[in-house]
Amino acid sequence: MEIFNAYIEANAERFIEELKQLCRQPSVAAQGIGLEEMAELVRTKLKKLGVEVRLMPVDDGPPVIYGQLGEGKRTLLFYNHYDVQPPDPLDLWESEPFSPQIREGKLYARGVADNKGDLLARLHAVEAYQATLGELPLTIRWFFEGEEEVGSPHLATFAAEHADLLAADGCMWEAGRKDESERPTIALGLKGIMYLELRAHGAASDLHSSLATIVPNPAWRLVWALSTFKDENDNILVDGLMDHVTEPTAAELEMLAAIPFEEEKVRARFGIPHFIRGLTGVQALKKHLYEPTCTICGFKAGYLEQGTKTVLPSTAMVKLDFRLVPNLEPDLVLELLRQHLRKRGFTDIEVVPMSKEHSAKTMFDTPIVKAAISAAKVVYGQNPVVYPLMAGSGPMYPLTQALGTPAFSAGVGYADSNVHAPNENIRLEDYFEGIRFVGELIRQFGTGN
Amino acid sequence: MEIFNAYIEANAERFIEELKQLCRQPSVAAQGIGLEEMAELVRTKLKKLGVEVRLMPVDDGPPVIYGQLGEGKRTLLFYNHYDVQPPDPLDLWESEPFSPQIREGKLYARGVADNKGDLLARLHAVEAYQATLGELPLTIRWFFEGEEEVGSPHLATFAAEHADLLAADGCMWEAGRKDESERPTIALGLKGIMYLELRAHGAASDLHSSLATIVPNPAWRLVWALSTFKDENDNILVDGLMDHVTEPTAAELEMLAAIPFEEEKVRARFGIPHFIRGLTGVQALKKHLYEPTCTICGFKAGYLEQGTKTVLPSTAMVKLDFRLVPNLEPDLVLELLRQHLRKRGFTDIEVVPMSKEHSAKTMFDTPIVKAAISAAKVVYGQNPVVYPLMAGSGPMYPLTQALGTPAFSAGVGYADSNVHAPNENIRLEDYFEGIRFVGELIRQFGTGN
Repeated sequence: MEIFNAYIEANAERFIEELKQLCRQPSVAAQGIGLEEMAELVRTKLKKLGVEVRLMPVDDGPPVIYGQLGEGKRTLLFYNHYDVQPPDPLDLWESEPFSPQIREGKLYARGVADNKGDLLARLHAVEAYQATLGELPLTIRWFFEGEEEVGSPHLATFAAEHADLLAADGCMWEAGRKDESERPTIALGLKGIMYLELRAHGAASDLHSSLATIVPNPAWRLVWALSTFKDENDNILVDGLMDHVTEPTAAELEMLAAIPFEEEKVRARFGIPHFIRGLTGVQALKKHLYEPTCTICGFKAGYLEQGTKTVLPSTAMVKLDFRLVPNLEPDLVLELLRQHLRKRGFTDIEVVPMSKEHSAKTMFDTPIVKAAISAAKVVYGQNPVVYPLMAGSGPMYPLTQALGTPAFSAGVGYADSNVHAPNENIRLEDYFEGIRFVGELIRQFGTGN
Repeated sequence: MEIFNAYIEANAERFIEELKQLCRQPSVAAQGIGLEEMAELVRTKLKKLGVEVRLMPVDDGPPVIYGQLGEGKRTLLFYNHYDVQPPDPLDLWESEPFSPQIREGKLYARGVADNKGDLLARLHAVEAYQATLGELPLTIRWFFEGEEEVGSPHLATFAAEHADLLAADGCMWEAGRKDESERPTIALGLKGIMYLELRAHGAASDLHSSLATIVPNPAWRLVWALSTFKDENDNILVDGLMDHVTEPTAAELEMLAAIPFEEEKVRARFGIPHFIRGLTGVQALKKHLYEPTCTICGFKAGYLEQGTKTVLPSTAMVKLDFRLVPNLEPDLVLELLRQHLRKRGFTDIEVVPMSKEHSAKTMFDTPIVKAAISAAKVVYGQNPVVYPLMAGSGPMYPLTQALGTPAFSAGVGYADSNVHAPNENIRLEDYFEGIRFVGELIRQFGTGN
């Protein structure tokens, strides 16, 4: 692979320019901004590699980008997404989120770590492979969507309808990162999610707060309802929900124990004195990977600016996400929550499901996972840390598990990539290593080694 | 007073133009917008009446406007404020908040009901009096501040230091309104207030919500703390707070019973099916006037826009106001709240006092109240409804009660004035009646009848 690596070095500057070009194009799925333009940009890049590429429409959504290239006994599926999270809060960015800037070897931009860096690294790997080693030793299929950050509402239907296009022997999932101690990581599954809004209504319009004596306050209604969902020790209290949560198996606990978890570094990076419940070591890790969450992602009511406004709000809204371990189906959680509210008389609170995703798991003992671990050893010079599950979510289940495709995640991020947060970034060195990893994976998986 | 009334009619158009001029000038105390310009506008208008007027500086705040005019055995103090509430939420206004617009006999603008309409009506009354009846039969003193909507932080000190300038035999407080059945109202006191922010902090920056398994969420911290402040039946649970609340006296209950309370009209106007606790009649009124409140005026955490963002917020903030009945001093409430939080382990939650005000009460049997009731009968042709207390707050205590001045409130608003809310408005007819009321009050109070 020396010639392959040399090509990457020789083209490093252009590769970064192209990455900046992708990052310069906003593509915020939650706000419907820039998605068509972004899809067109990506399509053009695939085309240049000689890929047969199609923009495939989905109802009321940005198109799927589908591509295929190469021949061989195996097929490798790349899953990525070209949409990004909203960039706010803007005032905490040190440079503009859609004006990519390199500072101290890091490229800062919304979406560079999640997921434009990985999307492009895989294209650059194929380019380098073809330019130096010739024809691909396997078939590569690309599936890029533009709605990952809003819960991939069309993916399950698309995957079921186009199972033939998506069939593969292994899938490389969207992203991954090095951990706090610079070890590459590989993950074999992810949590599900149920994202919803709670909406409460009081008077027909905002009122003077002196009327709070007799006119109901929707913000209080939400506070009272929320306080029945989870206690101060972070135990989820939604009726029946925890009954569906199973303990990890002995084999999974063994994998957990093998994961180096440098908790002090993690806490220092987040700037927190201790984890929830004061958990440490493998117990913290176990909660992180094997417990569901119930998270207030947003709470909006009344006056939000500086100073005082004595107002009785007429509406209040909470955005809530539940991260779901295997067995906790999103629809089940939604129904349990509705029952829970009904039972307690919170029939005035509207529950609006926003997006959902199933959890997914890949077994350790599969050719694609073996090839990934082996490729990581070659490129990073060390064993990757293998996570049985990621704490995040994604549409892995319908795209891979439902179609019988084993999947793993790996990518170009690192511990301080600030995914979904201000100052999202990747290190340029990680980007080039990520390209080399994909090249090595193609070689090993394609040639059966 | 016929000649006085004729003058108002003849100058009606100009009066409204002048009112629109005041409303066109934003003067948002919470945001420090336009206050100097507004003070200058008001100063000019006082000057034109022949008032000796001074802009008196206060530390880090917009100036006090003080003026004096006339001679007589009695002195009448007008208290008004030239600042207004923030205009948001802007999207609910049917016309721009600072572009006054007349629709169906109503003038819509932020501040027109609270408090620019009343401020100017009193000036117009003096103008009309002088132009038609000659010299004023008493001394009028004006005290206008520009910080009422942020809790009058400098008023108490100013009043104590300038007691001589503010001495009076009676004070007409800032505002008032007709009730649901078009009866004029007069109020003899108001509640106190303690306005504060609760601030909670989690990780050093916003994080991906998958980390909510182990990283504390400040929004949840606030929800848990808030849920200990008040129960679903609207009972305030802050340790010790309700111990300081006394029942109204027999005399006060009699006044309450005499207040016509058209609850169905009130509920219909607010668009609510029932009052808190399902209260009706005098019980609802009693809670409204004689119970304190604990109101979420704002709750801000995480992602507030459309769609989904899976974020673990790093900060959360709640704006809370307590409306205080007599005996509940603001500082006492602040201290009780702090103790309450400490006792429950919420030492991570920052309590930031923003503004406070004492409650105040004037006795019924005073010359200024008698003159006000009598003037109302003349102008409105009916007995005014007398409220022993208002549910709102204001700096009445230091400006009047502490100086021994009895005070009453009356003004140009009506039941749908939308004070502190979008589409704030007054009816032009009420404005002219309000001028006539002030003229009659000057005559009666000044001549001792």
